[in-house]
Formats: sequence, C-alpha cells, structure tokens
Amino acid sequence: MALECKDLLGMQYLNPEQINEIMHTAEQMKQILLQSSKKTPHLQGKSIVTLFYENSTRTRMSFELASKYMSAAAANISASTSSVQKGETLIDTGRTLDRMGTDLIIIRHPMSGAPHLLAKHVKAGVINAGDGMNEHPTQALLDLYTMREKKGADIKGLRVAIVGDVAHSRVARSNIWSLTKLGAQVRICAPRTLMPVELEKTGVQVTSSVEEAVTGADVVMGLRIQLERQKKGLFPSVKEYNDFYGLTPKRIKLADPEVLIMHPGPMNRGVEISSQVADSAASAIDEQVTNGVAVRMALLYMLTRKGSVK
Amino acid sequence: MALECKDLLGMQYLNPEQINEIMHTAEQMKQILLQSSKKTPHLQGKSIVTLFYENSTRTRMSFELASKYMSAAAANISASTSSVQKGETLIDTGRTLDRMGTDLIIIRHPMSGAPHLLAKHVKAGVINAGDGMNEHPTQALLDLYTMREKKGADIKGLRVAIVGDVAHSRVARSNIWSLTKLGAQVRICAPRTLMPVELEKTGVQVTSSVEEAVTGADVVMGLRIQLERQKKGLFPSVKEYNDFYGLTPKRIKLADPEVLIMHPGPMNRGVEISSQVADSAASAIDEQVTNGVAVRMALLYMLTRKGSVK
Amino acid sequence: MALECKDLLGMQYLNPEQINEIMHTAEQMKQILLQSSKKTPHLQGKSIVTLFYENSTRTRMSFELASKYMSAAAANISASTSSVQKGETLIDTGRTLDRMGTDLIIIRHPMSGAPHLLAKHVKAGVINAGDGMNEHPTQALLDLYTMREKKGADIKGLRVAIVGDVAHSRVARSNIWSLTKLGAQVRICAPRTLMPVELEKTGVQVTSSVEEAVTGADVVMGLRIQLERQKKGLFPSVKEYNDFYGLTPKRIKLADPEVLIMHPGPMNRGVEISSQVADSAASAIDEQVTNGVAVRMALLYMLTRKGSVK
Repeated sequence: MALECKDLLGMQYLNPEQINEIMHTAEQMKQILLQSSKKTPHLQGKSIVTLFYENSTRTRMSFELASKYMSAAAANISASTSSVQKGETLIDTGRTLDRMGTDLIIIRHPMSGAPHLLAKHVKAGVINAGDGMNEHPTQALLDLYTMREKKGADIKGLRVAIVGDVAHSRVARSNIWSLTKLGAQVRICAPRTLMPVELEKTGVQVTSSVEEAVTGADVVMGLRIQLERQKKGLFPSVKEYNDFYGLTPKRIKLADPEVLIMHPGPMNRGVEISSQVADSAASAIDEQVTNGVAVRMALLYMLTRKGSVK
Repeated sequence: MALECKDLLGMQYLNPEQINEIMHTAEQMKQILLQSSKKTPHLQGKSIVTLFYENSTRTRMSFELASKYMSAAAANISASTSSVQKGETLIDTGRTLDRMGTDLIIIRHPMSGAPHLLAKHVKAGVINAGDGMNEHPTQALLDLYTMREKKGADIKGLRVAIVGDVAHSRVARSNIWSLTKLGAQVRICAPRTLMPVELEKTGVQVTSSVEEAVTGADVVMGLRIQLERQKKGLFPSVKEYNDFYGLTPKRIKLADPEVLIMHPGPMNRGVEISSQVADSAASAIDEQVTNGVAVRMALLYMLTRKGSVK
Repeated sequence: MALECKDLLGMQYLNPEQINEIMHTAEQMKQILLQSSKKTPHLQGKSIVTLFYENSTRTRMSFELASKYMSAAAANISASTSSVQKGETLIDTGRTLDRMGTDLIIIRHPMSGAPHLLAKHVKAGVINAGDGMNEHPTQALLDLYTMREKKGADIKGLRVAIVGDVAHSRVARSNIWSLTKLGAQVRICAPRTLMPVELEKTGVQVTSSVEEAVTGADVVMGLRIQLERQKKGLFPSVKEYNDFYGLTPKRIKLADPEVLIMHPGPMNRGVEISSQVADSAASAIDEQVTNGVAVRMALLYMLTRKGSVK
C-alpha cells in the first residue's frame, strides 16, 4: 500500500505504481465481495461520510455499501437537507465532519476543484466522487480494473474508444488521464458541439466519426448523454443523436472481434447505446458495477490506514 | 424453512404451509425483538436495500430496523433522490443493485406488477412492500400473525370484517388472498364508489353496510382512507365518511364481545376510526407494529438463506 | 449514572449533580472518540431513531455518528419523507417507533414542547434536539463541557457573554438555564428587537451594547443570526448587524485576555462573527463539535441503561 497521501482527488495525480497498488488491493476486495458473506472488519471503528452536492444513487450506494461491508460507521449527507442551504462554507462543513471523527469524506460537487479545497482544510481523507466537469477518479479506476480483468493486466497499446458527450464528462477526463498514463491508445469521439478544445495536448486521437473511433478498437466506452443538454442546442434530437453517435450493433461490428463494451451508467438505452449492444456477450457493463464496489473498498481501506502507509 | 423461491411477491403465491413456516419463524423473531438487546448475527454479511418509489416512513423503517437488528448491511434508496429521475429503467436499477452484492431488494412502487418485473431480472431476492393497488403481502402477514396471536393459530371460520376504501387498498387485497386461503370468513365493506368489482369471485361477503359487516365479527380491520380521494368525488366529506363508515364505539358494540380491532396505520383518527376504538383494550393496532418487524425479520432471514432452503 | 428519568427534555429539569454526571461520562466518551478506532459495544442491540421535523445536518450527524460509534442500530426520519405528511399525529408516530423496538427517539420539532408531549406517550427515551424557541439541551451540555475543559470544572463566577438573536435562540435559552444553575455570571446582549422580554426574572444581566457585554468576559458566545429574520424587519441589514453586533477582533480585545470564543455553528462568517475571531487561538468552535459527539455518546449511553440507573 503506497498512496502516500490522505486523498484521492484525481487520476492526474496518481502514478502507475499507485494505480497498480489500487488494482492489486481491489482484486482482494473483489474476492470478499463475491463471497456469500461480505462482512469484513477492515474498517471497524472508522467513520466514512458521503457528502453529495449532486444527486447520485449509483455512486453513493457503491460507496455506502463498500463502507458497510467493511464494518465502517457510514453516514450520508445530501445537499438538499444539508446546512449548505444555511450558508455554511464548504470548508466549515468539512471541518465540522473532521471534528466529529470522520476518517474519510466522499464528496461530489458541481464545482471543479471543490474536493481539492476541502482536502486542503481537513484532516480526514477526501475522495473525489465527481467534481464538475473535472474528474471522477473512482470511475476511471473501476473502468481500468474491468479492462485489466477482461484484457489482461498490461493495457499498453490497448485501443480504447470513448464515444459521446466528452465535453461535459468527468468520466472521460479521468479515463484519459489514467489510460494515457498507462500507455493505452485512446480515441475520443464526440459531436463537434460536445468536444472539448483542450484535448489536443493530451496525445489522444480525436474524431467526430464514430466509425473511425470504433474501427479495430479493443474497448468501446459509451458516455451518458445528459438529455437536458439537448434543450441548450448542443445536439439536435435524441433520435438523431442515436443515428449519428449511438453505439449500435452495426457500428460495433467495425471493432475488434473481441471488443469489450463499457458504459458508466445509468444508460439511456436507445440513445447513446442500443440495448442489443448493452446486453451483448461483449458487454462488461454489469461487471463494471461490481468492480466499482471492489475498487471503492480498496480505496477506503488504503486511505484509512494512513498510519501504516509504507 | 420452505419458501422455495427467492422472492415474496404476493399472498396469492403462498400456500398455507409456507404461510405457517413464516408464522413459525416470526414467533422466534418476536422473542428476539422483545429482549433488551435486539442484536442478532442472522444477516451478518448480507446486504438489504429498500427501493421505495413511494414515500412510506412506517414500512421502510420496519424493514430497515429489522435488517439492522439482524446485523445486515442496510441501505435506502428513495425515488426522489434516485437515478430513476435520470431515466434509468427499473430493470437496470435492479441489475445495478444485484451487481453491488445486494442480497434482498425491498421494493415499493406505484405500479402493480413492478416487483414481479424486477424479480424476474435480478438474482437478489425481492420483497414486495406494496405495488400499486395490487398487494402488500408483508402487511397481510403481520395482520395474520396478530390474529393468530390473539385468536389462536387456527383461523378457519374466523369472522373478519374489512371496512373502508377497499378499491384502492393493496392491504385489503393481500388480506383477502391470505384469509380466504386459510378458511376465514371474510366480509368486505366499502362505500359503493370505493368497492372493487372483481371481488365477487373471491368468495368473500360484500356489503355497503358497516353494521352488517361488523355484526358478530371476531376481527374488525379499518382501512386508511386517502383524504385526497375525496377531491376526486369518491366520497362526500370527511365528516360524512365518518358518519357512514367510521369505526365508532357504537358500531363496534355490534361485533363479538371479544372482537379484535386492527388498522394498518397511519390512522386518520376521527375519520375511518374513532380514537375511542383505536385506543380501546380490544385494539391490537400497536401490537401490529411490533409484529410487523417480527414478520419482516423472519422474511429477511428466510429469503437470504437460499442455500439452505429445504 | 443518575439521570433518574428516561428523557432529556431541557436543561431546566436537570440539577447540578445530574449535569456533573453527564460531564463525567462525556469525558470517558471523548477518550474513545479520540482513539484511532472509535468502535465500542456500548449500544449493541439498542435502537436509536432521529425524528427531525426541521432540517439539521450538524445535529443529526452528531447523534447519528455517536449512535454508530457505539454500535447501535441507528435510523433517520426526516419530516419531508415521513408519514407526518399523511396526517398522523406525533403521538401515533412515537408509539409506532416504540413498538418497533426503538430505545431512544431524538426529536427536533418547530413547536416548543413537542418533545415533552412525545415523551409522555412513549416508553422509549426522548432527547430534545431542539424544540421551537424553547430548548436545545445537548447544545448547552456541549457548551458547558467545552467551558469546563478550557476554564476548569468549577464554572461558578465565570463571566459568560451570549451575543446575538437571543429572542429566537433555544441555544441561548438552554445555556441560560444551565449556566445560572451552576453559578456563572451570564450577560445577554441582543438588539432590542431580538431580545426576549421574559429574561428579567432569570437573574442574568441584559444589555444592548456588545462592548458592555464583552468587557472582561471569560467566555464570549456568538449566536447564529437567521438571515431570513431580516426580511421581517427584525434587524436592518447584514452589514449593519455586523457593524453593531458582530464579534470583531476590536470588540474581543475588551474581553479577558484569556477569553474563550464559542459559536454553536453553522456560522455566518462576516455577519455575527468575523473570520479572524472564529479562527483565532482563543476559539473553541471546532472543539465544540467534537465535544458535541462526546456529550451525545454519554447521553445515549446513560438513557439506554434504564435498568441500571442507580
């Protein structure tokens, strides 16, 4: 175990050795998760709080169950009921949690950088569970875990196509950091209106043609499209989005025959991905969910053992 | 233990032997519940999630406390904060919970049949905690438990009057399935506008006169009236509802001298039931709540021990 | 342990011996809280429910974590999702919790006296976590704990200035009960529009001048101002409130050189207290939070051991 810091703020801050350590610990956690009894004493006496300023059942539940499987005292704060509404600053909220004995704060926040600000002012460890359009590192770690599990531990040269609303996707951003660091060949595909400008310098391939992105790919990852963006004119209609950018069986046929299909969920079936693709034998979408719990168990464990960091 | 299935979807699917098994297990659970320390290791390492698409403090708390008394990892999802809002299908939500290691999903849903759909697509066990106007089997089981406790184990021939908004009541429907199956003599009383048409074939007695329903009854069960139905013109006014259908001391005098008064709660005092009746020595309304936890503990236990089903 | 009752409803009902017992138990709990592992079996098998009819992340979390550190089965009910909306009476809600095996109900309610009503009708212990403008006894206990910790166990003669919206503050009211009972010299300072009339008889000093209140004080406690009160014309503007009543470094200089700064949180920085004061070495605001968990652990423990009350 060698995270050497109290927080997990983004994939941009992890080096390949640290990533490997997390993968290795997650493998052990997955074994526990697949047992008939999932109870372990790893986090006994530790306190984990989710502090979510944006709704997310999926990510919150994944952390909450991971905490409970490991016997932590786990509690949730959601923005709608929190004292945020009373005008307290994020730092004061964090300091309060700190002083209540919280060992780890899992934060999701609409503003990029909020977890960093929090981390700087609390003794508790901080895990970024999604900040604005910046990063969602635990998603990238579970995606990586899934790729390694299905494609082998060395992902150098792996051809990974990420398709969808890249501009607004912290999932895409964290995956780009993680995958390029480990030597994968990353291809990004988005409608021009949903393609970020700053990608040029990251060394990834950029295209607006799904066919081009997908051809020969070992992994095709669909991104969730936020339907409310359509109202803002960022894409024409759900049907047209599906026509031009949806992951359909026809398009997936262009990929490597052993292609792995991924999606962070929740899916808009028939929009960014067709059900035939999502439910095919090539799909690892369900497995991603399990791996998400395993990866989070690993992180909770590693980040609450600061005393024993070697 | 012989439920022989992973789910509890409705009283219509249980046979008398299975019902007896549940009653028997619930008796043991009630002993635990009445102890000064309610902690048992029965569900250690198991994961129970309540997935409620309708609000219900009472039922949710009953399941949540039952889970926690038995040392399960318990977590709640309520529709207002869930990814339902993000357009995810029920099946995908269920599959996600499945893949997070959930052993049992407790679902309440406004649409009849939703638990059945879910059960078909997940490995986890599913308990129907109320689906539309269809069933609410755990309520019927706790009602049955209460009748047996107070009136003896053999309820054959027991005269049970169910009074109120039967048309919209899943509680009534589950009780009719359960009680007729066990040979009770069931009498249904509702205003004509709140009486379902399909009751004819169930073999229960149907009347619009409370006096007729209640006379000589061993058990009188009031149903909660949804005050918002009045706006829809289904009953005249709260006062008139009480005048014509309320369970008042005068009406209860027509029943058997040893009559048992029941109500699923929460009560509208002075509407469908008067406080004098609700708080009388004949009332088992408080006891129903305790029995609800005992019955749910029994079900959680039985349905998470699939390996040992005989 | 000698609370000799099942409830904690207000500081007005506790005598100095009982207060000392709580302080003594809280000291032991604080030791546990500061350990690397906070897990204790003190409440194993006990069930604690927070029943909050007003939002409060801070107080709810403090009780929830205290419960979980001590291994209780802990569950939350918030008004927005509760059957309160369904018109159930408070007493019926309480009786339901009682019958589910709840050992302690932690209630916050906008109406003064609601906890007393509840306590009278349930077997469970009841802790008042804030009722209307009446009392917030656990806050006064943690405030007292903090004063004793920093200023010595005997607070007789301690000069304590409480500054702010006293009229609407249950924190102020509970502290006045507690501090006068123990012989502290209490000074109350509020704008005339926010000063309650009934204070005359309590023996505290009353003033509208912050300078007067603060001069020579051993402890200065700021109260949170509810910004929405301004709309009602109870104070002119946030800036003017700060100018006339804010705890600023200049004003704090008038206090004893060893002055202790306190605030119940969440703070409106720059309104009732300046950041320089809140974050100064004299401030115990962060420590108050930790002491809040310790005091609540003590109360949960003492009130669930009715059997062993001596």
